[in-house]
Amino acid sequence: MAFLSMDLPELRKHRPERTEPEDFDAFWADTLATARAFPARLDTTPVETGLTTVTVEDATFPGHAGQPIKGWLVRPRGAEGRRLPVVVGYVGYGGGRGLPHDHLLWASAGYAHLVMDTRGQGGGWSVGDTPDEAGSAGPAHPGSMTRGVLDPAAYYYRRLYTDAVRAVDAVRTHPGIDPARILVAGSSQGGGLALAVAGLVPDLAGVIAEVPFLQHIRRATEITDAYPYKEVAEFCKVHRDKVETVFRTLAYFDGLNFAARATAPALYSVALMDEVCPPETVFASHNHYRGPKQISVHPYNGHEGGGSHHTPTALAFAASVTSAG
Amino acid sequence: MAFLSMDLPELRKHRPERTEPEDFDAFWADTLATARAFPARLDTTPVETGLTTVTVEDATFPGHAGQPIKGWLVRPRGAEGRRLPVVVGYVGYGGGRGLPHDHLLWASAGYAHLVMDTRGQGGGWSVGDTPDEAGSAGPAHPGSMTRGVLDPAAYYYRRLYTDAVRAVDAVRTHPGIDPARILVAGSSQGGGLALAVAGLVPDLAGVIAEVPFLQHIRRATEITDAYPYKEVAEFCKVHRDKVETVFRTLAYFDGLNFAARATAPALYSVALMDEVCPPETVFASHNHYRGPKQISVHPYNGHEGGGSHHTPTALAFAASVTSAG
Amino acid sequence: MAFLSMDLPELRKHRPERTEPEDFDAFWADTLATARAFPARLDTTPVETGLTTVTVEDATFPGHAGQPIKGWLVRPRGAEGRRLPVVVGYVGYGGGRGLPHDHLLWASAGYAHLVMDTRGQGGGWSVGDTPDEAGSAGPAHPGSMTRGVLDPAAYYYRRLYTDAVRAVDAVRTHPGIDPARILVAGSSQGGGLALAVAGLVPDLAGVIAEVPFLQHIRRATEITDAYPYKEVAEFCKVHRDKVETVFRTLAYFDGLNFAARATAPALYSVALMDEVCPPETVFASHNHYRGPKQISVHPYNGHEGGGSHHTPTALAFAASVTSAG
Amino acid sequence: MAFLSMDLPELRKHRPERTEPEDFDAFWADTLATARAFPARLDTTPVETGLTTVTVEDATFPGHAGQPIKGWLVRPRGAEGRRLPVVVGYVGYGGGRGLPHDHLLWASAGYAHLVMDTRGQGGGWSVGDTPDEAGSAGPAHPGSMTRGVLDPAAYYYRRLYTDAVRAVDAVRTHPGIDPARILVAGSSQGGGLALAVAGLVPDLAGVIAEVPFLQHIRRATEITDAYPYKEVAEFCKVHRDKVETVFRTLAYFDGLNFAARATAPALYSVALMDEVCPPETVFASHNHYRGPKQISVHPYNGHEGGGSHHTPTALAFAASVTSAG
Amino acid sequence: MAFLSMDLPELRKHRPERTEPEDFDAFWADTLATARAFPARLDTTPVETGLTTVTVEDATFPGHAGQPIKGWLVRPRGAEGRRLPVVVGYVGYGGGRGLPHDHLLWASAGYAHLVMDTRGQGGGWSVGDTPDEAGSAGPAHPGSMTRGVLDPAAYYYRRLYTDAVRAVDAVRTHPGIDPARILVAGSSQGGGLALAVAGLVPDLAGVIAEVPFLQHIRRATEITDAYPYKEVAEFCKVHRDKVETVFRTLAYFDGLNFAARATAPALYSVALMDEVCPPETVFASHNHYRGPKQISVHPYNGHEGGGSHHTPTALAFAASVTSAG
Amino acid sequence: MAFLSMDLPELRKHRPERTEPEDFDAFWADTLATARAFPARLDTTPVETGLTTVTVEDATFPGHAGQPIKGWLVRPRGAEGRRLPVVVGYVGYGGGRGLPHDHLLWASAGYAHLVMDTRGQGGGWSVGDTPDEAGSAGPAHPGSMTRGVLDPAAYYYRRLYTDAVRAVDAVRTHPGIDPARILVAGSSQGGGLALAVAGLVPDLAGVIAEVPFLQHIRRATEITDAYPYKEVAEFCKVHRDKVETVFRTLAYFDGLNFAARATAPALYSVALMDEVCPPETVFASHNHYRGPKQISVHPYNGHEGGGSHHTPTALAFAASVTSAG
Repeated sequence: MAFLSMDLPELRKHRPERTEPEDFDAFWADTLATARAFPARLDTTPVETGLTTVTVEDATFPGHAGQPIKGWLVRPRGAEGRRLPVVVGYVGYGGGRGLPHDHLLWASAGYAHLVMDTRGQGGGWSVGDTPDEAGSAGPAHPGSMTRGVLDPAAYYYRRLYTDAVRAVDAVRTHPGIDPARILVAGSSQGGGLALAVAGLVPDLAGVIAEVPFLQHIRRATEITDAYPYKEVAEFCKVHRDKVETVFRTLAYFDGLNFAARATAPALYSVALMDEVCPPETVFASHNHYRGPKQISVHPYNGHEGGGSHHTPTALAFAASVTSAG
Repeated sequence: MAFLSMDLPELRKHRPERTEPEDFDAFWADTLATARAFPARLDTTPVETGLTTVTVEDATFPGHAGQPIKGWLVRPRGAEGRRLPVVVGYVGYGGGRGLPHDHLLWASAGYAHLVMDTRGQGGGWSVGDTPDEAGSAGPAHPGSMTRGVLDPAAYYYRRLYTDAVRAVDAVRTHPGIDPARILVAGSSQGGGLALAVAGLVPDLAGVIAEVPFLQHIRRATEITDAYPYKEVAEFCKVHRDKVETVFRTLAYFDGLNFAARATAPALYSVALMDEVCPPETVFASHNHYRGPKQISVHPYNGHEGGGSHHTPTALAFAASVTSAG
Repeated sequence: MAFLSMDLPELRKHRPERTEPEDFDAFWADTLATARAFPARLDTTPVETGLTTVTVEDATFPGHAGQPIKGWLVRPRGAEGRRLPVVVGYVGYGGGRGLPHDHLLWASAGYAHLVMDTRGQGGGWSVGDTPDEAGSAGPAHPGSMTRGVLDPAAYYYRRLYTDAVRAVDAVRTHPGIDPARILVAGSSQGGGLALAVAGLVPDLAGVIAEVPFLQHIRRATEITDAYPYKEVAEFCKVHRDKVETVFRTLAYFDGLNFAARATAPALYSVALMDEVCPPETVFASHNHYRGPKQISVHPYNGHEGGGSHHTPTALAFAASVTSAG
Repeated sequence: MAFLSMDLPELRKHRPERTEPEDFDAFWADTLATARAFPARLDTTPVETGLTTVTVEDATFPGHAGQPIKGWLVRPRGAEGRRLPVVVGYVGYGGGRGLPHDHLLWASAGYAHLVMDTRGQGGGWSVGDTPDEAGSAGPAHPGSMTRGVLDPAAYYYRRLYTDAVRAVDAVRTHPGIDPARILVAGSSQGGGLALAVAGLVPDLAGVIAEVPFLQHIRRATEITDAYPYKEVAEFCKVHRDKVETVFRTLAYFDGLNFAARATAPALYSVALMDEVCPPETVFASHNHYRGPKQISVHPYNGHEGGGSHHTPTALAFAASVTSAG
Repeated sequence: MAFLSMDLPELRKHRPERTEPEDFDAFWADTLATARAFPARLDTTPVETGLTTVTVEDATFPGHAGQPIKGWLVRPRGAEGRRLPVVVGYVGYGGGRGLPHDHLLWASAGYAHLVMDTRGQGGGWSVGDTPDEAGSAGPAHPGSMTRGVLDPAAYYYRRLYTDAVRAVDAVRTHPGIDPARILVAGSSQGGGLALAVAGLVPDLAGVIAEVPFLQHIRRATEITDAYPYKEVAEFCKVHRDKVETVFRTLAYFDGLNFAARATAPALYSVALMDEVCPPETVFASHNHYRGPKQISVHPYNGHEGGGSHHTPTALAFAASVTSAG
Repeated sequence: MAFLSMDLPELRKHRPERTEPEDFDAFWADTLATARAFPARLDTTPVETGLTTVTVEDATFPGHAGQPIKGWLVRPRGAEGRRLPVVVGYVGYGGGRGLPHDHLLWASAGYAHLVMDTRGQGGGWSVGDTPDEAGSAGPAHPGSMTRGVLDPAAYYYRRLYTDAVRAVDAVRTHPGIDPARILVAGSSQGGGLALAVAGLVPDLAGVIAEVPFLQHIRRATEITDAYPYKEVAEFCKVHRDKVETVFRTLAYFDGLNFAARATAPALYSVALMDEVCPPETVFASHNHYRGPKQISVHPYNGHEGGGSHHTPTALAFAASVTSAG
């Protein structure tokens, strides 16, 4: 698709009003306190991969309600004795943790890398191994976006955001990881998760949010026809009488509210022809972000964003924010 | 789409081998026995609709695990003192029980009509009000077709088929309904549910299965690109190592195995240009059906099937199988 | 599709200039006078439907040029002795009167209901039984929108609008109908017909126009790619030298000019993601409507509009405008 | 699209059974006799085109029911005194006679060329100037294919085939045309018309039918999703109870029945990836053609067929069949 | 597609800033000087076509780097002794010179007509016979738009624009052509070539540029998703680091810079629903055009533009600018 | 798409006749002899990537006509002194060598890995840096498939296959590589290149061809509508008179003829719903393959084939064929 309604100078200034529930902080404080009743831990089992430069472990940690969340822990071979900086990585919509060979980059650059599985997804494009143990809590459009959307407490992303925070809690307990040098990172839904964690966990070293999803959600449902935002629109199309209820719930999960609280240095990326995560919504998040921030702009790209062209930038950012560690 | 691979004479003879697990009957006997530990009942509350010829009640009955399943009970006004024949109706994929005004036909023809809500669906095209209280039990493609598909005991349709049986149990308890004149009816997924119930409940008066879904499932995933069968294919596309596990589960839910057990008179319909429920799969079910049967063939139709053109046939069928009651 | 160019506050104020031929009133006065040379009457024959709560009659009345127009007259059974309020219903583009079982709502709510067939359509999605006895009167794009469009006197909708007025004339002659309590109603093309009748017939009880078509036609051809407005654009694409002739004709048929004359209470509905009848054109009509009016806004819907969610509103509106009758 | 179900050797032998009404010949004898009650004539008026090598005249002749049918008569300038061989050309579906500059080929090659306008079409891709003065005679799918299709006497193509025959009658009366050297020619619908004329008019010099439409119609509706055959399938989809009536009518218009009667030399063309006029239907016609025949096969083409690559073949064919004149 | 962002009054005033390299004139002076080191000539061989009113010759002339460029020279038969005005015609994107029978118009109107083949294209929709002897000079998206785009000297269109200028040089040498009455003409890419030649060759009689391509290129890549502009966007999508390099090259080839230099009378056409060559870009060119100019506006057309409806306008324009010759 | 025409048992036996030019071996012997006049060498320059477990070098080697071909040489860090087994990797259609971070797998598993750039491609989905220095040698459809296709000597793939062979020649000269343990590998076009090299180079350790392109080309153009095979069909569509010339050329490049000559152990993969490289064509190649072979079958996959699920199989295969080295 061609350039969207705003041009770049407008986007750089775009800072729409946020919709924030009064009890936003209380909601999340309660949610995390409940989850943290289960002590953090990271259980790992070595996996035979045929790889010689890195080690891979099958990881499990307690997420929302203490439910076991899977992941892969990938580390450079031969670094066992050292406390490494770590990248906690989150996955895009519809995918799961995939297979170990999909995750070579960060370990090849000297980082520990925990890839968190996505509960109940993992059937769309990469495999997953973590069920979502909660029921649907109401009618839902196919997909995850509207599971439990009529109630913030029952909404799918309350569980998933909590898992993402608990992944950070988990890596802190691991002897091979330096708890002062934790980055959270992801693209699309993974970027949205990274930003949510950045708003909920105070002492991260850095945040990498590539073409992040779940930012300025209501606006997104009004300006794009692309899934997964469209799942919300489709639900509202059927449940004509529940539109305000839906968006009341989503306000607890909108990335703008997390961005406004986050203080760690952040690297965003945005693509100006991105129909899935429209640039207007990504800039809205970036421009509300409270901590130090930078954004890579890709003018002719869609949701693929910077792709591996952005990798050197991400590696440099990670090096800069972890070098003092 | 144009006529599919087989022409009509071939379809009329098409009776492929069934894949039936050895413990198929035991699986369902156990499933239903467990569900029936919760006594059948049908709770109803009158609804104000502005309609004068029929009454509508908001209905609730215990389904799988005794979970409350919603429905609408629609009856001709002024028939309160009589035991009416009843049509238990099931809804197509992605929809819920909808709104009362959507369900005027059967009551306008003198039948009680219980429309069963579909747990956890109801976001796709008509509203629903019944959550699916079980979690995902593993990775899943968006939609209901692969929720829990790696284990027959955890599979979504185990719960939904049980609900459908329990709907029949529930109407039998109602003083305004004649338990000897129960029809089950539906189109697409609703037709699949009707056939499953017909294979599990012995003494129905009749079965109406229009362009039924969930018949010869594995074959369907090989010959059509249309959803929702495609959800299974998409899951297998990602989970390349779990294809046989998936189809082992689905064999417990394939309509061919229910059709081969059902004895009530059945009215099928099929559309020869139906890509969603390919005619080959519908004839496979019809040709395995054990009881008396007839099938309406619509040569130039897709999944809309006979539409209201088929209504007179359905009314006549219902009248003929309930007239002795 | 996502929200169109104007947002809701702008739409509520949108009242574009109308294009009205000087002889608009004379054109329609002549047209109706000619048609009314054939005395109004409503011939009906009972139809066996298997329905017990309503009666259905096959209806015929004289339309444009006295040509016989078909319809269904559906009434609550047992109301034969009373003069009922009536809903004269018009059908969407490409459809005909369909089958009796498609029209249970209004009679189930206590109204007589005359469903008017649509001349020469009825092949697109529901069956019709009324030919259009006039020839094409010039080249035409497939469909009805450009049949005779080079001359107002020969244009297809001159005949169809006249039929719609004559349907009202016809029901007034029926002993079971209260001529003081006539509503006209329809969705899409049906809504456009209802609005045209409201501008041409002075003493209606009410008008229900859901996502009405044929409003601000020229503008619509400039902003949407959807059929049937697109038929006009396609015709202009080929007949590049006849663009002004086309729109000169269409000005006699634009709903804005009827809305500006109509005085009966009106219930509109509009869907903000409707590409077929863009919200801008529906609000243009509503904002020009001369009588009392209300509009139901469906923000996440397309041309399906309010669907059965809107039914209670329509029933309440009908009850309020006919209660004094 | 890729090669269709039959490969070329099979196609060359494909000669399916024809469906021919008993009174086929009587039907057409009556139809033509009635039309010929209006004496043949060709009225022409010079048109100023800015062209120097050819002359163009606006032509009119009596068609079905004597209705005036438009056309262009294009001739090489300077040949006024001679009786030229003539090509009577028919136009593809949805188009009309277009503009004079569209028709330079045959006159540039030394032929008189009468391009017949297509009644009631001419809005789809090229302009037309001839109305279809008959009404719809029943419900119809948009387009011409189902106008009046419930009755052979009222069917659109009865009028159009008659026009096509009368175009030949008309050119015979013109002093600049040699009545012994008349070719009929067209592509798609134009080819279908040429073949119909070839079956109805005994003494033509030749027939050019490129990727002809209207051949083996029922089969075509079963194997292709492409319009305009699809119009018939769409009509049958709605009018489920009239399928046999539809095909009873169409049997009077199926090109196979005309091909089986035609004796003039014929040049067919066929494209093996043609979805609009599937090669199976074109070969069915060719293989039933009674006179001398040849066929140009274009293996990688769709409905564009041979395009201007086929022009030299067509010119050579025309020269060979008119050289004795 | 519906009307684009600007309405017609805005378009008529739209005159965006041009991006012109400082050495634009030097670049083209050098380029043409180098090419003109090969003396102009037009070699022709008669072709047997079966046509009687025109003659066709297979033509060859030296283009960029003296490479032989093919063409067709079509002339009215019998005009051999006179010096005729000539139309040098260029072809749309992806096509070649096609076949002689495709090019009857201009010769039928009394002009000599040289159709220039397009090097290295001719596989997309009409045949070509001229290779592009230069290599790719770097990575490229499929198609011609990005061949060599990283360097102005190596860019494909440097060669093609040069060919187009050399075609004019060639016809001047022909004894049957009047060198004072040369028009350049084309549609889409052909129109872009005509405008480039108009900016590079001082003494043309006229320019016909229908829906011209290659105007305001960078803007076009931002507002349309249609090919071939999209080829540039696709290249930039992959080569994220070369966006500025790409547009630095394209500035040497942007039609706005040629329009601003051209002095011959020009006839433009534009279609308001043209997604391939958006009207905004065509008006940008027209409004920068330095010489006398007119523009035909087609409001409901896409890239087919005026089609043969525009032919009389083009013939009249050609007559007016060559009449003094 | 659903399963193609043949089912798996048929595919396993499918061994169609090959079309092999008489001078096939001579053509390739000459081609390679000419290319090998330029001595093999592999020039490398270290690249700074931020990676710590592997080293990356920018590589250049002489390809067809000695032209410099780019690549990346990726090796496990710390293995500098040893001669490693090497994987020479080729890239899919439309892509180039991409960026270093895209190529971590093989080096992470202990292999040297040379990724060969693809001349003149690299604009479609991954970046490339190698021009195709030969011109178009005739008309061509956009893309590489028909560049020079009218002459085997000028055909694009003659240059590219030669580059692929020369990449193997180049790695043999490198001191860090064991010339007895060379694998060639790729997916889609990359798989086609690997098979071509396997047929042209006698002493490879193994071949990995995932969903290979360029196998049984003529058949592929008849059964799939997908690009890039479709480029050939599109060319034939325009150049109707050159179909046999095209396929005469392509016979020199058809993978079946290379497979029939190859002797190294081969690992194929095939996806049964692959429209891009239909399974019928992949099995045709596999079943003609002369050396030891195995094939991974992915029943529900399209052209993505086995994805990272296939990686362990590929690593095990590579280990088994290089373990003796």
